[in-house]
Amino acid sequence: MERRVKLLGTGKYLPARVVTAAELDEQLGLATGWTEKKSGVRIRHYVTTETAAQMGAIAAKRAAEAAGVSLQELDCIVCASGTAQQEIPCTAALIQEELGLSRTGIPCFDINSTCLSFVTALDVMSCAMAAGVYKRVLIVSTEIASMGLNWKQKESCVLFGDGAAAVVVGQTPEGESSRIISSAMQTYSEGAHYSEIRGGGTMVHPRHYANGHEDDFAFDMDGRKIFRLTSQLITGFVDSLLAKASVSKKQLQAVIPHQASGMALRIMRTKLGFMEQQMVDIMADHGNVIAASIPMALHEAISQKRVARGDCLLLLGTSAGLSLGGIVLEY
Amino acid sequence: MERRVKLLGTGKYLPARVVTAAELDEQLGLATGWTEKKSGVRIRHYVTTETAAQMGAIAAKRAAEAAGVSLQELDCIVCASGTAQQEIPCTAALIQEELGLSRTGIPCFDINSTCLSFVTALDVMSCAMAAGVYKRVLIVSTEIASMGLNWKQKESCVLFGDGAAAVVVGQTPEGESSRIISSAMQTYSEGAHYSEIRGGGTMVHPRHYANGHEDDFAFDMDGRKIFRLTSQLITGFVDSLLAKASVSKKQLQAVIPHQASGMALRIMRTKLGFMEQQMVDIMADHGNVIAASIPMALHEAISQKRVARGDCLLLLGTSAGLSLGGIVLEY
Repeated sequence: MERRVKLLGTGKYLPARVVTAAELDEQLGLATGWTEKKSGVRIRHYVTTETAAQMGAIAAKRAAEAAGVSLQELDCIVCASGTAQQEIPCTAALIQEELGLSRTGIPCFDINSTCLSFVTALDVMSCAMAAGVYKRVLIVSTEIASMGLNWKQKESCVLFGDGAAAVVVGQTPEGESSRIISSAMQTYSEGAHYSEIRGGGTMVHPRHYANGHEDDFAFDMDGRKIFRLTSQLITGFVDSLLAKASVSKKQLQAVIPHQASGMALRIMRTKLGFMEQQMVDIMADHGNVIAASIPMALHEAISQKRVARGDCLLLLGTSAGLSLGGIVLEY
Repeated sequence: MERRVKLLGTGKYLPARVVTAAELDEQLGLATGWTEKKSGVRIRHYVTTETAAQMGAIAAKRAAEAAGVSLQELDCIVCASGTAQQEIPCTAALIQEELGLSRTGIPCFDINSTCLSFVTALDVMSCAMAAGVYKRVLIVSTEIASMGLNWKQKESCVLFGDGAAAVVVGQTPEGESSRIISSAMQTYSEGAHYSEIRGGGTMVHPRHYANGHEDDFAFDMDGRKIFRLTSQLITGFVDSLLAKASVSKKQLQAVIPHQASGMALRIMRTKLGFMEQQMVDIMADHGNVIAASIPMALHEAISQKRVARGDCLLLLGTSAGLSLGGIVLEY
């Protein structure tokens, strides 16, 4: 189960355009303070001209630089995002193009479990590295959430921001102990329709957009139902994941959670019994950046020196599906 | 590099609606015989009411039955398709729902490298199985190509069909020799725009469909450019993959190629020097079913008893990206 891989470097990119809670209060006709109080988000970023691949490429360059790895040394590029730049081809190929690697042959593909995409990608790609298939893998999560927001659902639209985060993963050198200790994922599709965008694929094609299907192309979330199902499952899920890793809650230097919402983070912490200083909470100045939230919080924790080599970390999140996912690793 | 996994069972589903070459000749105002001659496709299937998840679930049930594995024994469901049913959540969760497994917790996620999605999924998931993370993985490729065809590009629209194929992959029992011998993938994004659907993601949102962007939501293919780039690369790619596997072309009982087009299959065979009886060609009565083509051709080869346990097989294809991918395995 253990896989000797090391997170060599991380990077992030945020669009220049900052959208404040006050701006959304006004735009949505809400009482001053409503957005920040309900979402826990003071500012989030929205793209202006950036594409997902451009944001991902900048985050990737920063991650490679932090890792001390040249882009040409990468032997796989995985895009792990809940949104795609275009239907065909996969976003990873478009990131390869933005990175100036278009003649290198470095394999590119996408892994998608919505908000858990990064966790899923790290999990399976660490196995591919353990099997010797790859040596230095770039995982990029790049999300333009602002494109699909549902302005009729004020509870959800105030949560999200755009941005990208990237991690270069390598094999652990001899004599070092960085590794993935254990991982787990569970999907309960009884909650498959608790958060969804029904349109855009082969079921409700974009040609139907203007025929009264606008709502099918916006994010539709039932926060109450998600909360109820997640609450039933999360404690058992985390206990079993930590038991499998033989790591106690106290041994975790940091918990890197998906930044679902300010409230979700508070409830997760108290329900699971983590200390406030263990939780990496970047919600207030990033918002929920879909799959980029976890690697971005990881990047912030590393940049702020809240975690050091040898520390035990827990990556933990929930996603549309409805899924729970987590990885215990030694950084 | 070797991974001791066994393809336990396969299944396929084709929609009831059959579309003949003659029907397309008439619909497109082409000379009688043009469609079949150009595409190599006599009949293909289009969905009427089926969703991608419904097709995938039927193929999956048949694969599980062939494998002698109950659905509850699966411990991972991967959807490996070039098209998605809806933007959120991933199609694998929707397949889990259709399979009646919505309270099981079986993890679900999507892997996408367009037409190579199945090959990529089998490659990385066999590593996850080798690492002990999963024991019995369901990989489903389910495609509704007919939804995004470009009726202005007669060369491409006549190639495609809808359908699904599924494979249950398990760990190889002691004393048996089924295994993945070697695998390879290469992506050259200099060809990223040789075949694409630009719309539907965060770059050209469905809300722009009616504003003169209709063409961005249809499949746009430059067959000549794809042919030129692929021709430069494919021989070296296959030679190196077979060399890595220490398997000669003669030792391959069957080559399971992506069914790109009738011409592509002929050129691939002559260029690579395979014998006609080695090539599994299901183009004439299926068309190009995107990522479902390779597992569907595999299913046909197994069903027709063209391959038996112990045989060496080559899965081989190209995809948008532009990517080449292949796996040498002992069935």
